[in-house]
Amino acid sequence: MSKLYGNAVVGQSGGPTAAINATLAGVIRGVIEINQRQGAIGKLYGMRNGIEGLMQERLVDLGIFAEDEQKLSALELTPAAALGSCRKKLPKHEDDPAFYEQLLAVFKKYDIRYFFYIGGNDSMDTVSKLSAFVAESGYDMRVMGVPKTIDNDLEGTDHTPGFGSAAKYVATTVSEIIRDAAVYTTKAVTIVEIMGRDAGWLTTSASLGRLANGDEPDLVYLPEKPFCMDEFIESTKKALDKHPSVVVAVSEGIRFADGTYVGAGAQSGVKDVFGHQYLAGTGKALEYAVRDRIGCKVRSVELNVSQRCAGHLVSATDIADSVAIGRAAAIAAEQGESGKMMLYRRISSAPYACEFDCADVHEIANKIKCVPDEYINAEHNGITDACLAYLRPLIEGERYPKYVSGLPEQIIL
Amino acid sequence: MSKLYGNAVVGQSGGPTAAINATLAGVIRGVIEINQRQGAIGKLYGMRNGIEGLMQERLVDLGIFAEDEQKLSALELTPAAALGSCRKKLPKHEDDPAFYEQLLAVFKKYDIRYFFYIGGNDSMDTVSKLSAFVAESGYDMRVMGVPKTIDNDLEGTDHTPGFGSAAKYVATTVSEIIRDAAVYTTKAVTIVEIMGRDAGWLTTSASLGRLANGDEPDLVYLPEKPFCMDEFIESTKKALDKHPSVVVAVSEGIRFADGTYVGAGAQSGVKDVFGHQYLAGTGKALEYAVRDRIGCKVRSVELNVSQRCAGHLVSATDIADSVAIGRAAAIAAEQGESGKMMLYRRISSAPYACEFDCADVHEIANKIKCVPDEYINAEHNGITDACLAYLRPLIEGERYPKYVSGLPEQIIL
Repeated sequence: MSKLYGNAVVGQSGGPTAAINATLAGVIRGVIEINQRQGAIGKLYGMRNGIEGLMQERLVDLGIFAEDEQKLSALELTPAAALGSCRKKLPKHEDDPAFYEQLLAVFKKYDIRYFFYIGGNDSMDTVSKLSAFVAESGYDMRVMGVPKTIDNDLEGTDHTPGFGSAAKYVATTVSEIIRDAAVYTTKAVTIVEIMGRDAGWLTTSASLGRLANGDEPDLVYLPEKPFCMDEFIESTKKALDKHPSVVVAVSEGIRFADGTYVGAGAQSGVKDVFGHQYLAGTGKALEYAVRDRIGCKVRSVELNVSQRCAGHLVSATDIADSVAIGRAAAIAAEQGESGKMMLYRRISSAPYACEFDCADVHEIANKIKCVPDEYINAEHNGITDACLAYLRPLIEGERYPKYVSGLPEQIIL
Repeated sequence: MSKLYGNAVVGQSGGPTAAINATLAGVIRGVIEINQRQGAIGKLYGMRNGIEGLMQERLVDLGIFAEDEQKLSALELTPAAALGSCRKKLPKHEDDPAFYEQLLAVFKKYDIRYFFYIGGNDSMDTVSKLSAFVAESGYDMRVMGVPKTIDNDLEGTDHTPGFGSAAKYVATTVSEIIRDAAVYTTKAVTIVEIMGRDAGWLTTSASLGRLANGDEPDLVYLPEKPFCMDEFIESTKKALDKHPSVVVAVSEGIRFADGTYVGAGAQSGVKDVFGHQYLAGTGKALEYAVRDRIGCKVRSVELNVSQRCAGHLVSATDIADSVAIGRAAAIAAEQGESGKMMLYRRISSAPYACEFDCADVHEIANKIKCVPDEYINAEHNGITDACLAYLRPLIEGERYPKYVSGLPEQIIL
């Protein structure tokens, strides 16, 4: 593959995570390295608010980080997308050729030859369409997707950057809620609602306490298996017979056997641009069921957005992996890859070791990797040891931000 | 004051905090010291589930910590009440003399001469009644209250143990939510509901970002001032004109001018044994108002129980203060104090310095210290610099738990 000289642009898309800026820092590190050895990539621009900002030429020169290791290190621990994000769904080329011509004009104007997009499932759809377009148009540009999602539901990769930190946050917070719930002697049920519309990965991490102090939720429900309210009530009653404080972890996206969402009663009716239904109230639905059918004290806790933006509690493994995959994307693109998503292949869990690879993004986009059957117990209300063995290395290690006036330092671009 | 030889008992009561075990560790440290210099206090028992467990002689010998500095240090960072808690309201002596006779029998059986109760407003009511009873009965026992509440609403003390850590959690989490909310360009309002039924102290801490990176909620509403929905909608519209992402911090206990709770529409109807109404849905009420009257994207986030049990993110100042006040209580009791609540007097904010004192618990119980007018802006929708100057030292410094298998170590008694 011949060398392709030119500038690069990087963007962030989709929901924020605590590690998406670590991947941005990784791409910056990769390009700095390439620059230092006088490789093919020149300038690195950041697009504000993803592809939307790129269309409007809202670019920021990321050369500001070249001489500032301290700032780059702080960027790695700043939560949420420092460049801003968008939820723009790209039109099909045949439906809106003008859109693509306008993009092409921007690429030409800034001599952009490398395009990096950090995002989840929907962002890989953007990478897929864009790489198909440039291949067709004859404009020589390499387009690479770098995964990011707390949901861990992308096909083809062992795990996703951002998942480990979210899982550490969930596991830690649930272990604290278990302590909090255990202080009284009266019978009480605590429902913890965890993010996860289609895949229950993040909810599985609630059980990680089993490997630490032995405490874990009594019951865990994932979207992978149909939810049965009668089974839930019976299992909760049995758990209450054993000890007064029962904790239940539940994915926001659990559905009844007929496919309706358990939280449907509390649905907002809003859909996002990708057609996903906006869910709210799965925990509330279970709370009301316990109140009506068991009658004991009950509360629900929605872990909410902190699951994806708690930069104060990250997995050192996740941050290191997230930086490394961004750097690897820059180097892979310079070496000739395009139309690919970067991914991890796990070599070993103990000791933990992963290597990088990349795969055709067209094969990956718009697919969902669910929690496999062997990670879910026979009763469909708990997590197996095999699942915890998979999860454990991803949450290990702590890395703390620097604190200024008692609060974590954040890099604002 | 002559020396009083005998054993001691310590209990925890009311809602958990991230620092209540630090105070327990402080009492343990104080008694160990007294023991080592062959002072008046012998054994130290812990009562499980507060006064309820004491009645049932459910005691644990806290001598287990005497030779185990590592375990004691881990206890300081374990969230929620390690001894368990209760919400038992003591009867008046004249209403239930048998109750007090039974308690007295337990004191005599275990030769309890020192009684330490770590708790909030309601727990000081217990200390007040118990100290009045023993004074009357002629049984020589010293009864000391040690404050604890994330609400910071106890009279007579500069601040309360547990508040600084809760405030650090709130300030940090709100700063992360501000980052998370800022990634999109569409107009959106994020309502953050923070604990605080009668006093808005914890909500004031949401503004601490002003001293760090300059980011803070656009609007802050406290229970100290009547809430006006029209003013809220107008102020929110004005804020949306300035920037697309508006963040509002609100205490769960805000009320309209007629005294009804803003979250009343979503009230559960449940009251606790002290007659407090259980609130839910203040954030939801504002979310619905914004949706109806402004029509932009809006969400509400309830920070929930993590505010009081996030042992992974504590203020080093708070933990040190909480340990120190527990130790001081043990020493003050040995020196003759009784019927008192320990408290802090601030000597200086910069550098931060506090000294201990104690005050008659009868003067303190059942009173509420609200956020004073000079800490609230003229529009009643924001926090003054004077308030931040008061808050800042309380959240400063970080102390991290030891992690085991990626999760914080917890001491379970």
